[in-house]
Amino acid sequence: MKTLSELKDELELTPVQIMLLANTGSMTALLEALFGSVHVETVSQRVVKADQNTSEKLQIPLGAAVNHRVVRLVAEERVLVYAESFAPLSRLEEGFKEDIMKRDIPIGGIMEEHCIESRREILGYEFLRAGDEFAEIFSAPADSIVLKRNYNIIHNQQPLINITEVFSYEMAK
Amino acid sequence: MKTLSELKDELELTPVQIMLLANTGSMTALLEALFGSVHVETVSQRVVKADQNTSEKLQIPLGAAVNHRVVRLVAEERVLVYAESFAPLSRLEEGFKEDIMKRDIPIGGIMEEHCIESRREILGYEFLRAGDEFAEIFSAPADSIVLKRNYNIIHNQQPLINITEVFSYEMAK
Repeated sequence: MKTLSELKDELELTPVQIMLLANTGSMTALLEALFGSVHVETVSQRVVKADQNTSEKLQIPLGAAVNHRVVRLVAEERVLVYAESFAPLSRLEEGFKEDIMKRDIPIGGIMEEHCIESRREILGYEFLRAGDEFAEIFSAPADSIVLKRNYNIIHNQQPLINITEVFSYEMAK
Repeated sequence: MKTLSELKDELELTPVQIMLLANTGSMTALLEALFGSVHVETVSQRVVKADQNTSEKLQIPLGAAVNHRVVRLVAEERVLVYAESFAPLSRLEEGFKEDIMKRDIPIGGIMEEHCIESRREILGYEFLRAGDEFAEIFSAPADSIVLKRNYNIIHNQQPLINITEVFSYEMAK
């Protein structure tokens, strides 16, 4: 994965794109300020065993139970962000676990509701062509660009959630 | 003070201004991504007794010892943000206290260096004419607009710092 400056060297980014990528606070808070009320559409949510990559990122044993959630953040029927998250069950407090597993609420909203203190550690950036999958999700051409970042939300000095966010270059142009 | 939507009703705001105002992460992280390396110029720093307003915002007794710091966040000799903060001495851990009282580092940098987990609670927004003071600080006309917000950084479920940030409308146009 790339750093933000590497990404900036390879791709012309607008101030809004740069701020979404560099943001260390709630993504939903920024999206709602820009686009109005944001709701979550849960694409899938299930408990899986951590593979090599997930266990390294979350610093948990290989095979540990992890909640895997894929959502779309939507404002006025427009998909703004596609987000995939992995959260080790052993680190989720009861109310938080219930919200993330059963309710369509953005992570930032869950954190706020439970007054959870944290910090965010951005692990890296990437850009790629939308391809068929993201073209459909974002209603964008298949050869358009999507931006991607991966970060950990740290709580009690351990990764609580690893999140990959994808959004279309066009959305924040 | 106003909410962000009230501010948006009264003033035409650009996406960049909206994002800076709505941001619940590190302000320095956003500014550095936009403008390059940011350094702090400390205007003043001293211990004061909490007045009525400060004691209410920080939920501390009237007269309690508070570190009062006024800084400018500067990138390439341009003042981006003028920030005033109040932090109760009783809630500052040793290393944090030393950094905030003796070193020219942005709050976001101090939090990161000490791996401090927190959440930010935005208390309100305001806009005003620059006037002589801010006109000089931001090299802007005295009748230009400056944007202002006030928020608490919460740590261990208590306000750790109350911050007022001011920046010129022009900076993020």
